[in-house]
Amino acid sequence: MNLKHKLLLVTILFSSICFAQTKVVEDFKPSSVNQPGKEYPMVNSEGRVRVQISAPEATKVQLDISAVKYDLTKDENGVWTGESAPQDEGFHYYQLWVDGAAVPDPNSLYFYGASRWGSGIEVPAKDQDFYALKDVPHGKVSRHMYYSETSKSMRRCFVYTPPGYETDLNKRYPVLYLQHGGGEDETGWSSQGHADLILDNLIAEGKSVPFIIVMDNGTWAMPRPPRNAQQGERPAGPWPPEGWADGFMNTLLNDVIPMIDSKYRTVPDSEHRAMAGLSMGGMQTRVITLAHPEVFSYVGMFSGGSISVEDLQNSPGFKDNIKLVFISYGSREIENPRPGPWGDPKANTQLLKEAGMNTHFYVSPLTVHEWQSWRRGLHEFAPLLFRE
Amino acid sequence: MNLKHKLLLVTILFSSICFAQTKVVEDFKPSSVNQPGKEYPMVNSEGRVRVQISAPEATKVQLDISAVKYDLTKDENGVWTGESAPQDEGFHYYQLWVDGAAVPDPNSLYFYGASRWGSGIEVPAKDQDFYALKDVPHGKVSRHMYYSETSKSMRRCFVYTPPGYETDLNKRYPVLYLQHGGGEDETGWSSQGHADLILDNLIAEGKSVPFIIVMDNGTWAMPRPPRNAQQGERPAGPWPPEGWADGFMNTLLNDVIPMIDSKYRTVPDSEHRAMAGLSMGGMQTRVITLAHPEVFSYVGMFSGGSISVEDLQNSPGFKDNIKLVFISYGSREIENPRPGPWGDPKANTQLLKEAGMNTHFYVSPLTVHEWQSWRRGLHEFAPLLFRE
Repeated sequence: MNLKHKLLLVTILFSSICFAQTKVVEDFKPSSVNQPGKEYPMVNSEGRVRVQISAPEATKVQLDISAVKYDLTKDENGVWTGESAPQDEGFHYYQLWVDGAAVPDPNSLYFYGASRWGSGIEVPAKDQDFYALKDVPHGKVSRHMYYSETSKSMRRCFVYTPPGYETDLNKRYPVLYLQHGGGEDETGWSSQGHADLILDNLIAEGKSVPFIIVMDNGTWAMPRPPRNAQQGERPAGPWPPEGWADGFMNTLLNDVIPMIDSKYRTVPDSEHRAMAGLSMGGMQTRVITLAHPEVFSYVGMFSGGSISVEDLQNSPGFKDNIKLVFISYGSREIENPRPGPWGDPKANTQLLKEAGMNTHFYVSPLTVHEWQSWRRGLHEFAPLLFRE
Repeated sequence: MNLKHKLLLVTILFSSICFAQTKVVEDFKPSSVNQPGKEYPMVNSEGRVRVQISAPEATKVQLDISAVKYDLTKDENGVWTGESAPQDEGFHYYQLWVDGAAVPDPNSLYFYGASRWGSGIEVPAKDQDFYALKDVPHGKVSRHMYYSETSKSMRRCFVYTPPGYETDLNKRYPVLYLQHGGGEDETGWSSQGHADLILDNLIAEGKSVPFIIVMDNGTWAMPRPPRNAQQGERPAGPWPPEGWADGFMNTLLNDVIPMIDSKYRTVPDSEHRAMAGLSMGGMQTRVITLAHPEVFSYVGMFSGGSISVEDLQNSPGFKDNIKLVFISYGSREIENPRPGPWGDPKANTQLLKEAGMNTHFYVSPLTVHEWQSWRRGLHEFAPLLFRE
């Protein structure tokens, strides 16, 4: 085989690979979180996201999802269409770029994340049944406005009450305080998180006791980690800096919990109170339950660090009061967990168990630092709560 | 004065007029419904709306509000800025056009109207205090999922319960069923409508008795009126066609009301039940209460037609059962109300009063067929309800 033939062969092979990479399975269906009556965006069985937008005078339109931008193609009517590479199962934030303007897709529903209201899409997951809307008894989600003495302002929270809460007027319920992540807000868990549907379904299957979930806004000016920490190294000093979670901690302990205990039929003691959160909300859960283990009995951290044996030594009462420490991560983030003062979450959790605490460690298959990991985290965590 | 001088004078006069028309008062402030931390869109004391968006590669960007498009201007950094003519007080839907793509403004909160989730803006109204968020006792708004036998599907509604509902467990409450307009949905009244805040404030002032508000989705395939009706003439045949509201009527009577009476501490009789709606929701209120006057006692129609003396003759029981017919319009739409089988709403309502019914007719000052008219309508209507 001479050089010319070799080059030809290489060209053929390379073309085949490229063709294989870009071949798209044409079984796209509208996303389940489209606006009413909208055909696009669509998702196919590979998890590719296809969007479409009319922009006759535009010269460049892109789909921006999972930190990658994909060029769309314009047809003769000025309608742009294009798709992404296959995405992980579950929910993803995304946006469009139209001639340099970053805008929401006008066809999708909107969700708060990345510090903005913007587009979201669902890539159907094999286990989506656990957060599906079914004809089972449903609880409800209530929007509460309340005055916070701590922040001297009106605040908002959402409260899930389980099925039966409205009619069993003599029954009192335990409470889970459940926090969102950085750049998200109090709407996340009952919107893209489906916390209400997860609990409705678990309760219908007899897998979880009914409890109340309170979702407040934990947004806090979180300082950026030092550059070396962003690259995965342990920062030199304590990180996050001492006191970073005090604002939300004070609001939670002094305003939210007393308000909930006065307005809802709770069992207002620590044995019937849990706290959990995702990412930043997990980090807040860690700080707040270590500082006040007398207030809670169950602790959950989804992609948000872990509790170390060292932490126990610095928090008198934590080991005796806390009945469960639940730690979870997405499988695709667990090999490189976010930097923090907690070290390796899996090893930490194992050491905590060896130190005599009841711990659970859960890994969500094939997911990153996104909502599918956290939905699954809650789904694993909830059945473990408030078992006498 | 020769021709040259005349032309110069005309030019000067014309320039002055143009200058006067386009002079903008520079006291813009961020809209109250911006996304957190966003400076734009802004509104000035004239009611002009100023938007800003970065679109470095775009050649044409427009603000589209109240059915008028305004060109924006690009600066050296590719940031486009521009403003509208003065807008009426209150809430307006709007969108941006970027090189032919109609998109939501990425800086505003989003609202469902015009059959889409899109941008909204508040032009501060002189009477905005009646729907302001204040440190008064607050009710809450709950999101309910329920199965509808009528539509054989899961449906969603929102329910406002007044302050005290959670703690006065022996008290039962009357209910207002309150409907949105065409192209809107069950989120409208508790979002841009501020029904919850209007009631919280009225109750705090002692001006309204506490009651429950149920907001469901009344979207119905409403046929377009014939061309002559769109031009203000009375359509030849019955309009809207017989049966157009049956779908929602059946859901309301057979699914929603029984569900609410079973899950909430209502007074489940007609004397403690009201129905009202805006635009299409008012037209549905008319059809449903005329067909089933035994179910309700109070009727409200905001920019959605009226009840005629002829209607009374066709609806045995309406005159005896209904304690109040409340009709309202925006002042800027009342001279040309939407076509329908009800004729002139003001004259109709006067004739209804003369026929012996308790009626109220309210006109919202300086507003069109928009939310400020309907907020004011509810604010006038609520204090008249459920007075024994």
